Amino acid sequence: MDMERLKKQMEFIVEADKVKNIFRQTYLADRKRKENDAEHSWHLALMAVLLKEYSNEEADLSRVIPMVLIHDLVEIDAGDTYAYDAAGTATQKERENKAADRIFSMLPADQGEWLRELWDEFEAYTTPDAKFAHLLDNFQPLLLNDASNGLSWTEHQVKKSQIYRRNQHLPETSEVIWEYMKSLIDKHVELGHIIDDM
Amino acid sequence: MDMERLKKQMEFIVEADKVKNIFRQTYLADRKRKENDAEHSWHLALMAVLLKEYSNEEADLSRVIPMVLIHDLVEIDAGDTYAYDAAGTATQKERENKAADRIFSMLPADQGEWLRELWDEFEAYTTPDAKFAHLLDNFQPLLLNDASNGLSWTEHQVKKSQIYRRNQHLPETSEVIWEYMKSLIDKHVELGHIIDDM
Repeated sequence: MDMERLKKQMEFIVEADKVKNIFRQTYLADRKRKENDAEHSWHLALMAVLLKEYSNEEADLSRVIPMVLIHDLVEIDAGDTYAYDAAGTATQKERENKAADRIFSMLPADQGEWLRELWDEFEAYTTPDAKFAHLLDNFQPLLLNDASNGLSWTEHQVKKSQIYRRNQHLPETSEVIWEYMKSLIDKHVELGHIIDDM
Repeated sequence: MDMERLKKQMEFIVEADKVKNIFRQTYLADRKRKENDAEHSWHLALMAVLLKEYSNEEADLSRVIPMVLIHDLVEIDAGDTYAYDAAGTATQKERENKAADRIFSMLPADQGEWLRELWDEFEAYTTPDAKFAHLLDNFQPLLLNDASNGLSWTEHQVKKSQIYRRNQHLPETSEVIWEYMKSLIDKHVELGHIIDDM
């Protein structure tokens, strides 16, 4: 029995608990509080299982699911950067890379390197698996924004052009989901929750 | 495009958001608040990825992960039943079956039936995948109890015999994890957080 290996895995699992205290800008559907990274990542994994059929390119869930489960662990050190916060996003890469160095190296080398590669792949946003993971990562808060009557969009005075820029790669990832997203965006532009600047 | 199918999937995904408000008796590692079902399920899925090597029988993550992601959805209707609450556990089965009927039938038939079967398999607790999922489900709160200095055990005056009874099938699922769990139980008996009645 390799006790050193087991000990590293246990320390990582307990360290990961901290993402339950990293809160995002998205509200839960019931509008009562904001969502944290662990809940968000759980939701993405569930959506990966249910929505795989809509990925234009074949997505491999044995890679997409670990990818979405760990994609926000770097925020334990780097904090959550709101998608439409320009100042925050300028330094995000550097802060998150440093965090990834520390967090994934807590694991035994084989597992730490594998998860780090999956995280780098997610960040690079080029493979079918990374593209599907990003689709989920962008779609889930939109679904919650719809369910919560646009609460986070209203609070941050989000513009339609910002949403379109952030989601510019989604049409090539899934026409079906992007069409659905557009219908929700249009609905909330209509309702005045998203600023119509296009 | 089958809009009826997509609509059902979306409604299920938004309905599932409610488990973020179902709180368990386990505290987060930092002792500041109790954990909810979505966070717990995220942690189990991450652990499934990292600890698969310790399952005595081969576990299939393409089944174990969806199983742990959805295993607590029934609590949206049935509420959380604390493992050591005798009155609650007496009516748990009936309440949870009724909830499963409602919740999984929100999905398109193929996906709803598949997840319902995985949930039934988890509840039946006989296949290697269900046994590994239960191992994670029992081990994770024990890890958090250890990290939080036995807070939930102390609050509920949990007895060593209760923990052993609840985990009686774990040695056949993973000797390694069970040995590790026993070492944590012994530590907290020693510290007076678990009542030594054996």
